Amino acid sequence: MLKSIEDSPLYRIANPRSFAFFGASNNFMSMGSIMLSSLLGGGFEGPIYPVHPKEELVQGLKAYRSVKDLPVAPDLAVLVLPTDIVNRTLEECGRKGIRRAIVVSGGFKEVGDRGVDLEKEMVRVAQEYDIRLIGPNCLGVTNPHHKMNPTPFPYEGSPGFIGLVSQSGSFVTQMFDYLKHLGLGFSTAFSVGNQANIDLVDCLAYLGACPHTKVIALYVEGLKRGRAFVETARSIIPEKPIVALYVGGSESGRRAGFSHTGAMAGPDRLYDGIFRQSGVIRAASLIEMFDYCWVLGTQPLAKGGRVVIQTHSGGPGATAADACGRAGLEMPPLAPETAAKLSPYVPSTGSLNNPLDLTFNKNPMDFFGPIPKILLEDPNADMLLVYFLMPLMKMQAMMENFKMTPEKAKEVGVQMIDGGSQAFTDLLQTYRKPIVGYTWRNLDEEMPLALMSKGIPVFTGPERAAGALGALLRYPALRDKIVRSVQAEGAGAADAGSD
Amino acid sequence: MLKSIEDSPLYRIANPRSFAFFGASNNFMSMGSIMLSSLLGGGFEGPIYPVHPKEELVQGLKAYRSVKDLPVAPDLAVLVLPTDIVNRTLEECGRKGIRRAIVVSGGFKEVGDRGVDLEKEMVRVAQEYDIRLIGPNCLGVTNPHHKMNPTPFPYEGSPGFIGLVSQSGSFVTQMFDYLKHLGLGFSTAFSVGNQANIDLVDCLAYLGACPHTKVIALYVEGLKRGRAFVETARSIIPEKPIVALYVGGSESGRRAGFSHTGAMAGPDRLYDGIFRQSGVIRAASLIEMFDYCWVLGTQPLAKGGRVVIQTHSGGPGATAADACGRAGLEMPPLAPETAAKLSPYVPSTGSLNNPLDLTFNKNPMDFFGPIPKILLEDPNADMLLVYFLMPLMKMQAMMENFKMTPEKAKEVGVQMIDGGSQAFTDLLQTYRKPIVGYTWRNLDEEMPLALMSKGIPVFTGPERAAGALGALLRYPALRDKIVRSVQAEGAGAADAGSD
Repeated sequence: MLKSIEDSPLYRIANPRSFAFFGASNNFMSMGSIMLSSLLGGGFEGPIYPVHPKEELVQGLKAYRSVKDLPVAPDLAVLVLPTDIVNRTLEECGRKGIRRAIVVSGGFKEVGDRGVDLEKEMVRVAQEYDIRLIGPNCLGVTNPHHKMNPTPFPYEGSPGFIGLVSQSGSFVTQMFDYLKHLGLGFSTAFSVGNQANIDLVDCLAYLGACPHTKVIALYVEGLKRGRAFVETARSIIPEKPIVALYVGGSESGRRAGFSHTGAMAGPDRLYDGIFRQSGVIRAASLIEMFDYCWVLGTQPLAKGGRVVIQTHSGGPGATAADACGRAGLEMPPLAPETAAKLSPYVPSTGSLNNPLDLTFNKNPMDFFGPIPKILLEDPNADMLLVYFLMPLMKMQAMMENFKMTPEKAKEVGVQMIDGGSQAFTDLLQTYRKPIVGYTWRNLDEEMPLALMSKGIPVFTGPERAAGALGALLRYPALRDKIVRSVQAEGAGAADAGSD
Repeated sequence: MLKSIEDSPLYRIANPRSFAFFGASNNFMSMGSIMLSSLLGGGFEGPIYPVHPKEELVQGLKAYRSVKDLPVAPDLAVLVLPTDIVNRTLEECGRKGIRRAIVVSGGFKEVGDRGVDLEKEMVRVAQEYDIRLIGPNCLGVTNPHHKMNPTPFPYEGSPGFIGLVSQSGSFVTQMFDYLKHLGLGFSTAFSVGNQANIDLVDCLAYLGACPHTKVIALYVEGLKRGRAFVETARSIIPEKPIVALYVGGSESGRRAGFSHTGAMAGPDRLYDGIFRQSGVIRAASLIEMFDYCWVLGTQPLAKGGRVVIQTHSGGPGATAADACGRAGLEMPPLAPETAAKLSPYVPSTGSLNNPLDLTFNKNPMDFFGPIPKILLEDPNADMLLVYFLMPLMKMQAMMENFKMTPEKAKEVGVQMIDGGSQAFTDLLQTYRKPIVGYTWRNLDEEMPLALMSKGIPVFTGPERAAGALGALLRYPALRDKIVRSVQAEGAGAADAGSD
């Protein structure tokens, strides 16, 4: 593992102090223009030098006719140029002393034939001038902690804890909106494109050392350096979890991936083996990958697989129990002392089993404080899964019917939502056991928004919640196995050394 | 199969002309009050007679001290009463001449012991007075086509085409919001509770004959009458598809279901066999069940399993290809004439394969008209799966940058969204091949909302889309098998008759 991200060739790609920008103009329909406007809109604080053969000003910035004319050698060049002039421009960057680049342009290895030769030439130029570059055929890098986002989509969420390496640019940019919706964001995300000079493994190593990154997500169409991948991942796993989505394992996924980035895929079994050896958790979809990241970055790890389900409705309880069972989790009966403590809170229509089905409770706030507290104190409970029907919003409507003014009802409702979500966060801090929720309601409603903003994930449906809880169990198991095997190797080496 | 829903004991339960309502008051915290207020809020057009021992008026309606005092015998009684007075009240209803009831109250078989006896007594009373009732321990029935919703949650969407029978009341009421979000709604939904007198099979038969119901969804914790279920389902399948979620197959799901409604579950293998014999498609989650309903109610059936994927981004294309492969669908190469017709629309960075990866296209409207038209004309294409990145909203931002006023940009944007979504609907009508979309963006954005409102489902992630497309292939296969076996039985019977 890297000692520091500053030792990574990616450091000044993800944290540049200044940019040379090629391919942006005042034509707002061009990709280069959109990307520069995104970088400007994101509030990047250092100097940006657009290079343009004709314009004096590009999007309000002084433009330069040629890279030769730049007053300094910026840390990073971004190239969004027609394929044919990319290598020549890169060479000019090299002569100027620019040592890092993002090559967005496509038309290289992924189109075959002449593109393959052009890409070889790019690699040669990079070597000659000691340039490290990401791409070609990529959307570059987003580092919201550095206010750096030259991708074509604005990054509107907060900086986050998920590091992403992706063989798809879309899976960087399309996730901005998706993650923001869940109150999450990226620490840094890399679109690696054709990996001509810097590859997925380099990015993985960077994120392993990145202090903002709590969990790493990988979108993989095919690995180029299997052994380096395994070694790098194994060096990171003791510190932070890695989750991967691999699409090359099916015949149709393999073909699509090859035509996308020229990636050489292998069968599922091969990749399952690589991931197992690496301690990487494999996800079945992009949604699942980010579900795993969500819980791994917000929840304590699980000490065991025993889940207690808290619900006020039987069907959601039964589906959650079924989903937990299928996800390999256990549903222990409540300890006798737990049932005793709960009984004042549970109406006669309810069920003092696991799932704990309250049906309703007279004081709705009990659902958010005393009841989950008792469940978390149960020595048989390793994790808590809570069904959120959003009764608080219902309460608000009822309060209005109760002749409360809408303003007063709203005020009381907001207090209940703040109080209820805070109660769960406090329980998380006190008991250090994972707590996740599920619902089928819209996640844009006040209650799930409040919970998610306070670090309690709320999933659409119990299947996703159960899968995510499973990841909280799998990661420590994988990590401990790797730590033990590294220790054993170390001991072996020491023995060998003492001979 | 029922000739008409009017032959069903459920007809006047789902289409009552008048109500007797027990358990509602002016205390808005009580379940009965909430349910009456929901019925009133939904705009039910017939008379409602609240019965209350003390109040003169209940929620503005004239109240009656006793069922004896009612001026007429209403079609349907709704009982939301303490357990102990349910049977006595039911008996009074019977004496009055009321012949249909919804018993919401719990405390019967699901609590064991004395509850079991109380439920037996209820069945006896019902028999004595020829009452057919749904429940106890249920949330009743929602029939938005009849403006009838006595469940505790308001039904705010439009009447729809999905018929639901559920052993969970929550899965009726919680789905109001979920389905509305997708532009869908229920035709009629039944919460069957303990099934003391009317069971899931009766409801299934009703929905089979219901003219508003295009597809039937079942939430099953355990079947009471396996043979009747199979026969009823087989009589419906030639007309409309049935999708089921069964949670009793895992040990934890079985235990939770029993404690919820006293349902006797069996192992997955048994239920898989029942569903297969019945022609019912089994779903793995509630989300998946409604995904299947969504496509089965909006899309033509698939003639074959060959999917063409249209994308402007490689990663989403590759994940979709992988998902289709894993869902058992095929990804045929495009026919040579298709590739020839497409080539003017595809930039050099794009890929004329399947997935068709456009990367971008100069006229964004081509994505919505000419390009999918060419793909649907391909003789190798049975279905079309489209990645919606929502470039139109992006266009709007760009138009604003292009010095267009925000109002004008908005206007053009809305036109593009209307035009783009209408173009897909027109293609659906013309080619009669299934078209579904996927995205990872928020489904509340204009483009998915427009598409969904026009009958093009848009799924979060390609895995759900691929699964749903698979249902369009599985249903006709199941249907044809059942039709053939019924014909063979008929022929056998005729042969036997001629002996």
